[in-house]
Amino acid sequence: MSAAVSSSGTSSNSGGQAVGFDFGAYLEAARQQVEAALDASLGPERPESLRDAMRYSLLAGGKRLRPILCLAACELAGGDPALAMPTAVALEMVHTMSLIHDDLPAMDNDDLRRGRPTNHKVYGEANAILAGDALLTRAFEMVALRSPGVPAERLLAVVGELSLASGAPGLVGGQVVDLECEGKSVDLDTLEYIHLHKTGALLRSCVLCGALIAGAGTDLLEALGTYARGIGLAFQIIDDILDVTASSEVLGKTAGKDLTADKTTYPKLLGLEESRRRAEALVAEAKGVLAPWADNAAPLLALADYITSRDR
Amino acid sequence: MSAAVSSSGTSSNSGGQAVGFDFGAYLEAARQQVEAALDASLGPERPESLRDAMRYSLLAGGKRLRPILCLAACELAGGDPALAMPTAVALEMVHTMSLIHDDLPAMDNDDLRRGRPTNHKVYGEANAILAGDALLTRAFEMVALRSPGVPAERLLAVVGELSLASGAPGLVGGQVVDLECEGKSVDLDTLEYIHLHKTGALLRSCVLCGALIAGAGTDLLEALGTYARGIGLAFQIIDDILDVTASSEVLGKTAGKDLTADKTTYPKLLGLEESRRRAEALVAEAKGVLAPWADNAAPLLALADYITSRDR
Repeated sequence: MSAAVSSSGTSSNSGGQAVGFDFGAYLEAARQQVEAALDASLGPERPESLRDAMRYSLLAGGKRLRPILCLAACELAGGDPALAMPTAVALEMVHTMSLIHDDLPAMDNDDLRRGRPTNHKVYGEANAILAGDALLTRAFEMVALRSPGVPAERLLAVVGELSLASGAPGLVGGQVVDLECEGKSVDLDTLEYIHLHKTGALLRSCVLCGALIAGAGTDLLEALGTYARGIGLAFQIIDDILDVTASSEVLGKTAGKDLTADKTTYPKLLGLEESRRRAEALVAEAKGVLAPWADNAAPLLALADYITSRDR
Repeated sequence: MSAAVSSSGTSSNSGGQAVGFDFGAYLEAARQQVEAALDASLGPERPESLRDAMRYSLLAGGKRLRPILCLAACELAGGDPALAMPTAVALEMVHTMSLIHDDLPAMDNDDLRRGRPTNHKVYGEANAILAGDALLTRAFEMVALRSPGVPAERLLAVVGELSLASGAPGLVGGQVVDLECEGKSVDLDTLEYIHLHKTGALLRSCVLCGALIAGAGTDLLEALGTYARGIGLAFQIIDDILDVTASSEVLGKTAGKDLTADKTTYPKLLGLEESRRRAEALVAEAKGVLAPWADNAAPLLALADYITSRDR
């Protein structure tokens, strides 16, 4: 893993924090390592149809920001990112589960995801629900049974963190409130509640789990919580902004859908400019709290920038 | 917990293995303790609608055989069953999740469960799917974060066992094959595969997890695996038999449904009498392997009998 981080280069996208850190090379190397680990995580299981449905969504590409955040946080905390890879895979499995279930006809009823038919469009609703269930349980298996070399206490803390982030206190709770608010005007507090849970909780879990694998102390865990809150909200604000400004072709999903569905978004509540300013302020705060760990923070600092500048 | 086991009595339903063991009293005391623990497991969470949907199915009554098997196995292995209660609750949460998702229109499309409307009939499909997801993640939270007094290594082993039993290698895999075989004639091997995974894997997990909490060795874990395989298959054979012989009123679900849906069952493949004989043989085998632990085996022995004689 460390090869990804030390791959040399001269330019920097991370705002100049780390001379000689080539973020582009780091990101691509980490992404490739994550892809390989994801591919290896689902073996030749029976029933084949279930494995196919799981693989279809888990290996559908994407930036793999969540696993990379986990690996980067592990490294920031002084750990070997290779030890965090099974947890990084677990986090992507939970994320994939949430996408499969969110896309179902009973929920967002989406036909396209990353430019391809959604899971239930290919495998049917029953198999899509079950593929999600299987990915969710497999995530815990990755941590508990496929994470050699990490003390049991740390892995158990990761299981706990992952369960909180994935369930009612996190991702699932956010999705429930999001569905309840569909077609209604909501205030900024509710909008933020939804984002902090539906997307923020898992992003937070990514950096916390990575740091837990490395045995991080309270100070760092707290700083990473603030970091994740900042980039999580910024991520969602940018998502709202992109939905207004980007075309279907670029996004690979039906653009403008949030507007037509009369969904409350940051641009709708605050306007595009103020939304952009808020995202920038959140990213600045996220980067600021990592100052005491500046020596190893280059990847996380660069990721914070990347999240607000990507056009996906 | 131990009060449940030591509650004195003179009669025995356990085939005379333990003089003075009052199985009826044991079962009722354990059930009440499990109910209280289930009730306490879901606090005043937001969003309320999600908590309501989770509680609706988790607290819908039932014999609570799975958690009781877990507690009894812990005791057989020389552990304090109170330490296994959070895991027992987790097992019932996974079971409940599987019922909620199985009942969905995209799967078995059932309107009634235990005499009450199914979860999606009351809360809608989206909330039913999400309540299942939340119960599944909460199960892992119970083990990882709410099991004081148990060493991390044991809890991590429980997480691993629970994840295998709940996911593709267990419950979910069995459900996928079951759905694939709907309306088709299947052979005995396939029927057994379905049962060993769809219901058997979680029953097996109940006794294994209880024993793991107590720090059981390989010999006992292996014997409990055989025990669980036996009662798991017997349980399902009896379920098939009951579906043919019992009325809707007694079962609280649509009786005869398996026959009308042209589903392969043991009575269909083997006849009622041979099915009964097979169930009895499996239970005898299950009880036989526990002979070396006879001193503490009264509850598990009685449970094996109970499973083949109950009319539910």
